[in-house]
Amino acid sequence: MGDVSRQSDSESELQQFDKLFPELVEDVLNSRAIKGAGTEQAVDWFRKVAEYNVPFGKKNRGISVVTSYRKLVKDPAAENIKRAQVLGWCVEWLQAFFLVADDIMDQSETRRGQACWYKKDDVGLVAINDSFFLESAIFQLLRKHIGDQSYYVNVLELFHETIMQTVAGQCLDMRTAPVGGKIDFTHFTLETYSAIVKWKTAFYSFYLPVALAMHMAGISDETSHNNVKPILLKMGHFFQVQDDYLDCFGTPEVTGKIGTDIEDNKCSWLVVQALHLATPEQRQVLEENYGRHDAENVSIIKSLYQELKIPKVYSDYEESSYQELMTLIAETQCPVPASVFTDFAQKIYKRQK
Amino acid sequence: MGDVSRQSDSESELQQFDKLFPELVEDVLNSRAIKGAGTEQAVDWFRKVAEYNVPFGKKNRGISVVTSYRKLVKDPAAENIKRAQVLGWCVEWLQAFFLVADDIMDQSETRRGQACWYKKDDVGLVAINDSFFLESAIFQLLRKHIGDQSYYVNVLELFHETIMQTVAGQCLDMRTAPVGGKIDFTHFTLETYSAIVKWKTAFYSFYLPVALAMHMAGISDETSHNNVKPILLKMGHFFQVQDDYLDCFGTPEVTGKIGTDIEDNKCSWLVVQALHLATPEQRQVLEENYGRHDAENVSIIKSLYQELKIPKVYSDYEESSYQELMTLIAETQCPVPASVFTDFAQKIYKRQK
Repeated sequence: MGDVSRQSDSESELQQFDKLFPELVEDVLNSRAIKGAGTEQAVDWFRKVAEYNVPFGKKNRGISVVTSYRKLVKDPAAENIKRAQVLGWCVEWLQAFFLVADDIMDQSETRRGQACWYKKDDVGLVAINDSFFLESAIFQLLRKHIGDQSYYVNVLELFHETIMQTVAGQCLDMRTAPVGGKIDFTHFTLETYSAIVKWKTAFYSFYLPVALAMHMAGISDETSHNNVKPILLKMGHFFQVQDDYLDCFGTPEVTGKIGTDIEDNKCSWLVVQALHLATPEQRQVLEENYGRHDAENVSIIKSLYQELKIPKVYSDYEESSYQELMTLIAETQCPVPASVFTDFAQKIYKRQK
Repeated sequence: MGDVSRQSDSESELQQFDKLFPELVEDVLNSRAIKGAGTEQAVDWFRKVAEYNVPFGKKNRGISVVTSYRKLVKDPAAENIKRAQVLGWCVEWLQAFFLVADDIMDQSETRRGQACWYKKDDVGLVAINDSFFLESAIFQLLRKHIGDQSYYVNVLELFHETIMQTVAGQCLDMRTAPVGGKIDFTHFTLETYSAIVKWKTAFYSFYLPVALAMHMAGISDETSHNNVKPILLKMGHFFQVQDDYLDCFGTPEVTGKIGTDIEDNKCSWLVVQALHLATPEQRQVLEENYGRHDAENVSIIKSLYQELKIPKVYSDYEESSYQELMTLIAETQCPVPASVFTDFAQKIYKRQK
């Protein structure tokens, strides 16, 4: 047990984290809520669901629970590092839950370099139920691994709240850009965009991991949480802008997915900027070609983005956003050391995938 | 407040229960997890989701939390009756969550006498996210209304466990009868059928409401819960058999839905019985006509059910199941009065919808 708490030279944080996954799958499948006479077929199926959908992300979210916790607590006990890893994996299961469901709703084709789960031959709409399983697994893991800890209820409530926030964000996103709906750019403003990003992505991807580490470290007061939130939500905003940029201008072999934001009529940061900069003629080009599942229309949109110098607008934004973030971190008073935020930021800025 | 605790002559338990619903919708929509700058569109949408999908069931599950609680606690305080009503509504929100999602997976048309939510013009696959909202609402209601009660964590864990059980049951159901899959009666046995019913329906519909009332009344020991479970699961089994019967032989104007079990290749109690009784020739008729979306095939199956006297098999089963249940109730030792179970049973046996 002793060496689990120290990051040895030969084993990275990620390798340690990855090692835990098979044990957690067994924990979930052996929980009273699922194991019993007659459920063998479901247990076998859910093993496949977990193994296909949970462990292949970048795991920045999950790992950041552990790295944040290490910065918050001096000489952490081995069993607490394991608990932080479990909470990190819970964030990854949460992510898998959202992605499996979002891919169905967005009618996506690929995810993390493989076919979307619902697209596989023997899956289809059963994937909806499989996404519920991934969500339910979180609460079985929490019960088993932190059910006896003083921060258990705080963590349960944080997951409940985060799920609701993300669901609200997904709703905003889909109401703004209905699949198969007609093109209407009225709501494609930076204001709407910012709201979608905050609720759909930033809470669960940025606030949640750090907040979990804070609860573990005994920092549960509302003031501290309210102080760190703006930093993490700002980071989340930048992250999504970058994600939108990579959806269009990233390399599929590197990102592991083929972007479809243009086809899907998404309220992407790129189209919001383009609408802001476009002449009336260019706006008409956008209206006539956005949101169509045709390679030619997509290509016209991408050319227009180049014409409007969107890549330059993006790199300028990346630079200024980074500077603003560092200022905000420096100005914030809270018991969380600045390196929790700066290290998180380092992983995100200038990423290629 | 005082009169909330007593069931007045002029106001039935159901009327009291119904009155609480609008307040709960506002509680959910005003929770910190969803209300904020930029979420107005989501809040408006989710109000529609809740009002369309939650309040139009028979509410037997929800009400039975309240009626069970009244039998467990002498002279209950008004605020505790309200809490029992809130827990009852949480069961109804849970049911709505499952039904919205199941209807998409089963590709159903109608539910409770109206179009399935996902079938409505402006909904579609967004209904998946809406089902997540309905589930998330439960935890916001629990936090607000029982967050300060000693049984809060027990109730949270009970909901988590029940959701996982139901998801496992739905998985068994869909693996046994894949939509659009080929007809294979190998798994259409009473054993498989019983497992599906137990996990998919009986835990959340029968054990959950009574278990919630027990937790509220301070009965949280494992022995008591293990003692009542077989009674409630047996009742759940009968309920599902009856549901299957009504799917085929019920009156749509009364049940509020058009049955599609035959078309959907469901592992229904009726087909399990038919397979058990069929000659090799009759089995072939089943194989050739079951699981097809064609009125003629359905009609052939229904005629065969009549030929095999399935309605008589059903009414014999109803009678013997009721007797067995009463015996089981009489023999069970636990701090829960028998009337909790017998009253619940009375609502179910001989129902028409």
